[in-house]
Amino acid sequence: MGEFSFIKWIRKRQKRRKDVIIGIGDDCAVIDVSSDRLCLITTDMLVDGTHFDLKKCTVRDVGRKAIACSISDVAAMGCQPTVAVISVCFPEHTTERFAKELYKGIWSIADKYNIEIVGGDIISGRSPLCINVAMLGRNDGLSPIRRSGAKAGDMILVTGTLGGSLLGKHLYFEPRLKEGLVLNKNFIIHAMIDISDGLTADLNHIMEESRVGAILYEDKIPISAAAVKMSKKTGKTARYHALFDGEDYELLVVLSKNQAKKVLESRLFSRGLISCIGEITSASGIQIKYSGGNIRRIKPHGYEHLKS
Amino acid sequence: MGEFSFIKWIRKRQKRRKDVIIGIGDDCAVIDVSSDRLCLITTDMLVDGTHFDLKKCTVRDVGRKAIACSISDVAAMGCQPTVAVISVCFPEHTTERFAKELYKGIWSIADKYNIEIVGGDIISGRSPLCINVAMLGRNDGLSPIRRSGAKAGDMILVTGTLGGSLLGKHLYFEPRLKEGLVLNKNFIIHAMIDISDGLTADLNHIMEESRVGAILYEDKIPISAAAVKMSKKTGKTARYHALFDGEDYELLVVLSKNQAKKVLESRLFSRGLISCIGEITSASGIQIKYSGGNIRRIKPHGYEHLKS
Repeated sequence: MGEFSFIKWIRKRQKRRKDVIIGIGDDCAVIDVSSDRLCLITTDMLVDGTHFDLKKCTVRDVGRKAIACSISDVAAMGCQPTVAVISVCFPEHTTERFAKELYKGIWSIADKYNIEIVGGDIISGRSPLCINVAMLGRNDGLSPIRRSGAKAGDMILVTGTLGGSLLGKHLYFEPRLKEGLVLNKNFIIHAMIDISDGLTADLNHIMEESRVGAILYEDKIPISAAAVKMSKKTGKTARYHALFDGEDYELLVVLSKNQAKKVLESRLFSRGLISCIGEITSASGIQIKYSGGNIRRIKPHGYEHLKS
Repeated sequence: MGEFSFIKWIRKRQKRRKDVIIGIGDDCAVIDVSSDRLCLITTDMLVDGTHFDLKKCTVRDVGRKAIACSISDVAAMGCQPTVAVISVCFPEHTTERFAKELYKGIWSIADKYNIEIVGGDIISGRSPLCINVAMLGRNDGLSPIRRSGAKAGDMILVTGTLGGSLLGKHLYFEPRLKEGLVLNKNFIIHAMIDISDGLTADLNHIMEESRVGAILYEDKIPISAAAVKMSKKTGKTARYHALFDGEDYELLVVLSKNQAKKVLESRLFSRGLISCIGEITSASGIQIKYSGGNIRRIKPHGYEHLKS
């Protein structure tokens, strides 16, 4: 199969949206953006050996993850994803089956969230499988939620449970799109981010952008079963994995004490889905408050590319 | 240097546009798209060993090329590029200098065309250098020009000269943005594409989308000096290189006989910049008409990824 017949194959199978004027098959995709709408764009690149390991997962899993990561980014703005363009570098001698399986993974989640793949680039090289998704979103009258609005005295909330995503969640997570939208529509959110680098690393992004610090409550961090399982392998504590592991793709949410109370009491979320894990401080840095009352500084860290 | 300090370095140096509400540094970039505007998006991935060879060019050349390719795609729609998001997979042990040089190449052309890099993803892997650009454009009241509007009897025009781009043009070409915009603003263009895969391969894309065929005039194909030089190396004719080499990034333009005449006589283009190289036929396939009058069918071909 050549590139062009592969593109034809994709094009024939691609579901269409009403607001796409030109989809796959031209130099550009054209999306009608009506007045008073903001256009969001995000991009994520995944490469074999770093973000996934084809020895341990299927190429369909990879396609799924690539789209889910970008949806998570749009969710972290409290907005709605709409379309995406996808570039793939296939290793030399890639089979047609392998290439199609990738797209089946892509559609398994893109279709679910009504995201149209409006274009892309298919290349090959002496390279491990590499995939890039650039996704657009729209705000539908809402304000996109930035990382920079956290204020001292605000509370820190998080969805789901954390840690040990390497045991499976990093591939199979469901992006918190619904939660991001519900939060943005119904509450005043000061700052939000999705946890891709790790709880402390992503909290640190909010802290830097907002020029604030944070205290985390040690006994309130929601620890996943995977973190517990992971701790038995690594000898580190489950809490360590919850604080520092990456790729949970949960939402980290900062809002006033009053709004936080409303979120925690709201029936819009199922019980236990959202926890309060700390508060924003004017003093910089992350501190951790133990159940006994002791407070200690911790250094934010998580996964970082190019780190020497 | 870690990923985050690299992003900070990029962010500090990035020129800003007025219509960008959120640029580098958040989960998404947000661009204010006012009413009656279309948002265009295109994506291009380049990998070492396929689209460039770091043994023969600088990483700055690579950054330049990555952006220029996407500008060329927007130019081929007759529209204006505005912003881009860039993902880069750096090989392990990439130096800070190398990474910064890439961005200097990116800005060398992005700044020239007033394109803001509004986001990106920096990763590393056991992979050759791989870069993806997703670019947005806007139509400013113009209709984006598709590949599908060619009609039998239309003329085929091309900008510049063709062939032998491997000798340098594939890295240093100037995207035909001005020409694409001038054509769209002042003439009725039926179809347009940029020549990335090769003259016959890209003409074939127009033919397939428009369900037409074409005759090329053998003696009218504008042959570049590089094609002549290349022919001495390869033993193939210079015309062969003009017809089949990829990455010239010239515009292939289809329009009515009357409009074509106006373009060729127009003072909007410098003399010799645009040539008429053939016409659209209702019969499918590409034929070539030799100066002696003979007509022969030729098979379109050019560079194609994943070709087995």
